[in-house]
Amino acid sequence: QVQCVVPVFILLHTPASSSSAAGSSPLKSLFQYIDDHQDQFIQRLAEWVAVQSESSDPAKWIEVEKMLNITAQRIREMGGSVELADVGTQQLSSGAVVPVPPVLLAEFPGDPKKATLCIYGHVDVQPAKKEDGWATNPYNLTEISGNLYGRGATDNKGPVLAWLHAVEVYQAIDITQYFFADVDYIVISDSVWASRNPALTYGARGSSYFFVEVDGPVDDFHSGVYGGSIHEPMTDLIALLASLVDHTGKILIPGVTDDVVPLTDSERKTYQNISFDLEDMKKVVGVKHFLQDTKVKVLMARWRHPSLSIHGIQGAFSEPGIKTVIPGRVIGKFSIRHVPSMNPPDVERKVQEHLKQVFNGLRSPNRMKVTSAIGAKPWVGKLCDNQYVAGGKAIKNVFGMEPELIREGSTVPILQDFQEVTGKSVMMLPIGGHDDGEHSKNEKISRYNFIEGTKLFAAYIYELSQV
Amino acid sequence: QVQCVVPVFILLHTPASSSSAAGSSPLKSLFQYIDDHQDQFIQRLAEWVAVQSESSDPAKWIEVEKMLNITAQRIREMGGSVELADVGTQQLSSGAVVPVPPVLLAEFPGDPKKATLCIYGHVDVQPAKKEDGWATNPYNLTEISGNLYGRGATDNKGPVLAWLHAVEVYQAIDITQYFFADVDYIVISDSVWASRNPALTYGARGSSYFFVEVDGPVDDFHSGVYGGSIHEPMTDLIALLASLVDHTGKILIPGVTDDVVPLTDSERKTYQNISFDLEDMKKVVGVKHFLQDTKVKVLMARWRHPSLSIHGIQGAFSEPGIKTVIPGRVIGKFSIRHVPSMNPPDVERKVQEHLKQVFNGLRSPNRMKVTSAIGAKPWVGKLCDNQYVAGGKAIKNVFGMEPELIREGSTVPILQDFQEVTGKSVMMLPIGGHDDGEHSKNEKISRYNFIEGTKLFAAYIYELSQV
Repeated sequence: QVQCVVPVFILLHTPASSSSAAGSSPLKSLFQYIDDHQDQFIQRLAEWVAVQSESSDPAKWIEVEKMLNITAQRIREMGGSVELADVGTQQLSSGAVVPVPPVLLAEFPGDPKKATLCIYGHVDVQPAKKEDGWATNPYNLTEISGNLYGRGATDNKGPVLAWLHAVEVYQAIDITQYFFADVDYIVISDSVWASRNPALTYGARGSSYFFVEVDGPVDDFHSGVYGGSIHEPMTDLIALLASLVDHTGKILIPGVTDDVVPLTDSERKTYQNISFDLEDMKKVVGVKHFLQDTKVKVLMARWRHPSLSIHGIQGAFSEPGIKTVIPGRVIGKFSIRHVPSMNPPDVERKVQEHLKQVFNGLRSPNRMKVTSAIGAKPWVGKLCDNQYVAGGKAIKNVFGMEPELIREGSTVPILQDFQEVTGKSVMMLPIGGHDDGEHSKNEKISRYNFIEGTKLFAAYIYELSQV
Repeated sequence: QVQCVVPVFILLHTPASSSSAAGSSPLKSLFQYIDDHQDQFIQRLAEWVAVQSESSDPAKWIEVEKMLNITAQRIREMGGSVELADVGTQQLSSGAVVPVPPVLLAEFPGDPKKATLCIYGHVDVQPAKKEDGWATNPYNLTEISGNLYGRGATDNKGPVLAWLHAVEVYQAIDITQYFFADVDYIVISDSVWASRNPALTYGARGSSYFFVEVDGPVDDFHSGVYGGSIHEPMTDLIALLASLVDHTGKILIPGVTDDVVPLTDSERKTYQNISFDLEDMKKVVGVKHFLQDTKVKVLMARWRHPSLSIHGIQGAFSEPGIKTVIPGRVIGKFSIRHVPSMNPPDVERKVQEHLKQVFNGLRSPNRMKVTSAIGAKPWVGKLCDNQYVAGGKAIKNVFGMEPELIREGSTVPILQDFQEVTGKSVMMLPIGGHDDGEHSKNEKISRYNFIEGTKLFAAYIYELSQV
């Protein structure tokens, strides 16, 4: 299927600690610079948001490449080197083989003896149309009451740009002793806080996306003419989708949850310490109650338990009004979020077997085909590592409070691969607010989070340089 | 909801039988005229098809009115009088109250002492877009291998125009003794043959269209962030839709099929006499087998048993590709075809009760709303009436064979109302082929059916004048 994340990697050496005069922190002047330049930073975000770099539609990959080129150009202007690495081709469901947008690899020059931070992000975005219910044009960054609305504002153009701005600040106030080195730390800001308080993110769920296609009649037919005489693909598909998850949120596919790691008392305590307000969250989401009835249970359902969501059906009648059609070919779409220690290929096999068994029970002459995409592993970071300490200090400095230690319910496919391949510590340092609406209509980042987040990145770089 | 049929009524007096010389039939010259003018008739159909008179979308009602005006203008040119009768306003789901397109009432002048035929049809059409998979532009009538492809070609602009052409022929060869009278017969050509053989249609199923809306979260949300913690409207909706019909086509809503009239032996025989070829039909539809295994059972399933079809879901992700969204508000759409003696309001009440009970079992904090539209009664005509005899003779004359006595699986809402209100005989005299694809992509009528159908109408008018 279609690649969903077009990665951007930036290698950044932490500045020489000697550049700060007599042990005094340079952060005050760094922060002042950020405050003074916030309008300029937001103007650049507006330029980035204006590029419709939707990666789920191959027809828009030209926009994705344009966005990569803009990012590359900005890094080069800042003195970094950039490679746009070819990652081969992909076969679309139409059968066409097309080149996948490249991966952006960038480095800022420096001393190989100093610790090096690898920043990971992405500049492609989810699809967005005004008709989805956006209050503003999704590709025209619009500030309303301190919030910056636009597709990619928080996921993930805003945070990527905040990292570049943090580097720019070091350059601007001439603390520019950057040095090459092997990677020591990997940091990613492709997530959001869990509450109104700043957080370090040490876990994320994996994901597999499934397409279950039911195909039978050669065409769409009139339900009056044929209704009652043919096995309708929609009837089959609804039965298949109804077999996946029950009304308590329990996944009904046999064996899928077998490998979920048991909860320990110490893990349970981390959830109790989080300032997540259940009543507040009910208002944000607009629901009278969640599937679970306590804060700890809701957080665990979002972060450390698997879930299954049904996203929609392609090929059926989806517009307003009335159409009495029997669709001839329909594709149901759902996804499963994996948690440690579920194994995506194993889950995908169990889904295949389950759907095959349910479909056999329908005795339908239609054809069923199940395919899957993404297949990203879940991730849990090492809380004891230096960079979590540095991240905690930076949060304390900028926001005056301890970080919340949180996980992310959504998926950053690279996290676990990174940790396994490099053997290095991976951390997520989010700056987006819990109500930013990433992947939804009216996506935004607040001016406060965008600017204070830039300060957090600058402070974090500084703390790493002190290790 | 939205009105789906914009009716056209034409009152036509049968010609004075004295106009045929010495008892000899004038049909030969009528038919010759039709053959000589077929390209002109088809050109006029192309002009009608070009008007995108989709009635299910209120934004296109201006096109519906344009089509009504074209029809009215043509009837006036032919010497008929036309009234475009206001039928009030309708409230859309948006809350807006808009005027509904008018009903076209036309009369051709004549002698009140002669029998009068009421022809009913419609000139609005189902939605159609090239992207639905049409091989041709649906609004550009295109002839390929003797078939005329275009939206409305067979449903119902082609047949309405064939009626006007049949009248035109009488006028052209000066058999123009038309007279006013009260309606004696009502004829409708808004259906298709059941096989390759011409037919008289004496029954049609009714229909109720249902919208089941599940609305909860204020917005669409990211399935990673919230998956597992909220009652997803899609999960609720899939469970609701899965409770409606089983894989054998059996409707699971309690009590809905209680009132279906039992089958008699004589009725069973009419199905056995139909030349419907099950193997041929499997190829047309593209299925390996039907829900039933014999011709008689398949025909009964389509004509005299109720059916339930699920048409699609509005508000969920329906495009190609991947989107990991939890839709906040989704609307499932399905319809039930009624047969004698089911009562639509009674069925609608049972559907409401059933869905309410299933939804209560889901213990969801979401809101469910069930609404229904159409609510058309099923219809069965009186086979012993004069006009069925006249129709049979006309078919024998034009096609050289006995008519098949068939029913229609789809719905012409006016049929039963007509029969009840007027107390007169109603008959359907189809000219469309069984593979015309009305309501689907690549809708067409064949040149043969369009031209021979015009002859059939002329012959039928003649036979009625002989009664």
